[in-house]
Amino acid sequence: MQNLWNPDISELSLQIANLNPSKIIVLVDENTHEQCLPHLIITIPELDGAEILEVPAGEESKTLEIAAELWMGLNDLEADRSSLLINLGGGMITDLGGFVASTFRRGMFFIHIPTTLLAMVDAAIGGKTGVNLGPYKNHIGTFQNPVATIVSPVWLETLSQRQLLAGFAEVLKHALIANEEYWQGCSTVSEMTYKSLAPLLERSIEIKEKVIIKDPFEKGERKALNFGHTIGHALESLSLHTSQPLLHGEAIGLGLIYETMISAQRGLLSEHESERILATLKMWYGHIEHETDPEKWWPLMLKDKKNRGQEVNCTLLQGIGKALINQQLNKAELAKLLIG
Amino acid sequence: MQNLWNPDISELSLQIANLNPSKIIVLVDENTHEQCLPHLIITIPELDGAEILEVPAGEESKTLEIAAELWMGLNDLEADRSSLLINLGGGMITDLGGFVASTFRRGMFFIHIPTTLLAMVDAAIGGKTGVNLGPYKNHIGTFQNPVATIVSPVWLETLSQRQLLAGFAEVLKHALIANEEYWQGCSTVSEMTYKSLAPLLERSIEIKEKVIIKDPFEKGERKALNFGHTIGHALESLSLHTSQPLLHGEAIGLGLIYETMISAQRGLLSEHESERILATLKMWYGHIEHETDPEKWWPLMLKDKKNRGQEVNCTLLQGIGKALINQQLNKAELAKLLIG
Repeated sequence: MQNLWNPDISELSLQIANLNPSKIIVLVDENTHEQCLPHLIITIPELDGAEILEVPAGEESKTLEIAAELWMGLNDLEADRSSLLINLGGGMITDLGGFVASTFRRGMFFIHIPTTLLAMVDAAIGGKTGVNLGPYKNHIGTFQNPVATIVSPVWLETLSQRQLLAGFAEVLKHALIANEEYWQGCSTVSEMTYKSLAPLLERSIEIKEKVIIKDPFEKGERKALNFGHTIGHALESLSLHTSQPLLHGEAIGLGLIYETMISAQRGLLSEHESERILATLKMWYGHIEHETDPEKWWPLMLKDKKNRGQEVNCTLLQGIGKALINQQLNKAELAKLLIG
Repeated sequence: MQNLWNPDISELSLQIANLNPSKIIVLVDENTHEQCLPHLIITIPELDGAEILEVPAGEESKTLEIAAELWMGLNDLEADRSSLLINLGGGMITDLGGFVASTFRRGMFFIHIPTTLLAMVDAAIGGKTGVNLGPYKNHIGTFQNPVATIVSPVWLETLSQRQLLAGFAEVLKHALIANEEYWQGCSTVSEMTYKSLAPLLERSIEIKEKVIIKDPFEKGERKALNFGHTIGHALESLSLHTSQPLLHGEAIGLGLIYETMISAQRGLLSEHESERILATLKMWYGHIEHETDPEKWWPLMLKDKKNRGQEVNCTLLQGIGKALINQQLNKAELAKLLIG
């Protein structure tokens, strides 16, 4: 495991010195090109002369077509196995760039510098890479750790309220599956600001890393991290081709609400617990517009990567701080779900 | 390492019993669909009801476009991570199928059943998967071992003389880089038949496996296996879009000739050694038509996966049975190469 909590991005200089790459390429989208790359280049003198590859911002870029363009781009730049790809951006960039790098000439060096809260606490941690296959999220990908993930809260300043709120859903998830005390801290957060969120980063990453070290390939325990994602992914997929696509984290916020409700329906959570959880979750995510008809969710849930055969495999809660993996959902119990 | 020398394809039944896959899909091309699949299905009752995916035969199918079709096909068949893809075919099928399986939902089970001599001794052994990126061979791929590789000589009976000769180039390469005594045995082969080739299989696979166990990701020693491939890949790429595309093994046969000549030019081989080697190699591969102008090879050699920066990294011989890795080729020394 090479995931590093590094509040200081000058760590990148050390990593470059260690690797001595034949070439450095930075992958950005138009947002991080404008808002993050200049700061990175000023801070890291080794990036003088680095090549830049840019893709359009947004989940729509996480496709095989864009991956193919990037492979051709790396080829045109004469990148080789000892070249380094630096993925500077949110989860789309780290997932896409990780997939491209891990398969280019069967693997070149790559380093993630996540710039969104969501990527810092989730997407860039744990070695999952991937692109979407049509409407199916991350259906094509690899398990491959970057040389390093350099998480610096400095980029939080570049994010909108909406982006911060999206990332916060994964922070809340980590609390819910792993630690009641941390959940209490998270549930007192009252604003989406650098000041209130930066202090939560390190703990959230630590929770994810702990799970992954025990189960890197998601054979068991790692599935805890999928809490909120079975329904969340379906909602995200359904929204992608509408006029109001959800951010991944917004969909996960909604997924956390619904999967908490299912946990309560099954009697895994006490009424008091589920009320506490739902009060916080609904405050942040309850108002987000989304497809509310479970009939429409179901076909997408059946395609979830974590399933085996025709069963929908889901992670539920059995208390705050305790995940219960490998629960089979049935379509009937979805019918009763309504965000009040 | 899970590569198995299994002359008996009923081994597949045991593997299926162990895996208990949620679904079985067999990947074939039109040749193996017709010539190999019926025998496999009769022999392995567990394949009753297996799904079949077919791609056109030939290197032209080893593309991202075909990979995308297969990913969609697996998705349509509702394959999941616990499903099994059986790759039944030559190196194109095992490379392509391995890549598709190792990246579908970040990795499903796969088993190789190589049906060409080349795939038996080379392509299906060692965990390399890949597709071509335009003219560049295997530029996109992964290192991922199959659950098993089941090598049975029974399929040799289905092959043409031309295909056997192509595979024999990799057998000769294994001998040249690893074992003088085995080379002597191989150089007495006088016909491309089941009878003369089947007895060579086990030793050849053993040589490749020994190298790979020590260096799975080709950081060092594994590069020995690239002998013949620096020039061979260039010749293969150049031929691909002509009316006479070379088989991979034919190009490697030619590459072995040229790279032996370079080893001799550099004084790494004695005159006696190079004459012995070239007599055998030229007898089998000297007559094959190909691009003979090294000026045209060079741009492709510069794109070789094994290079670092602008240097062409090559493996040469320093005696029969001894490879010398990490040799830098220069363009000037290619000028003198002519198959007399």
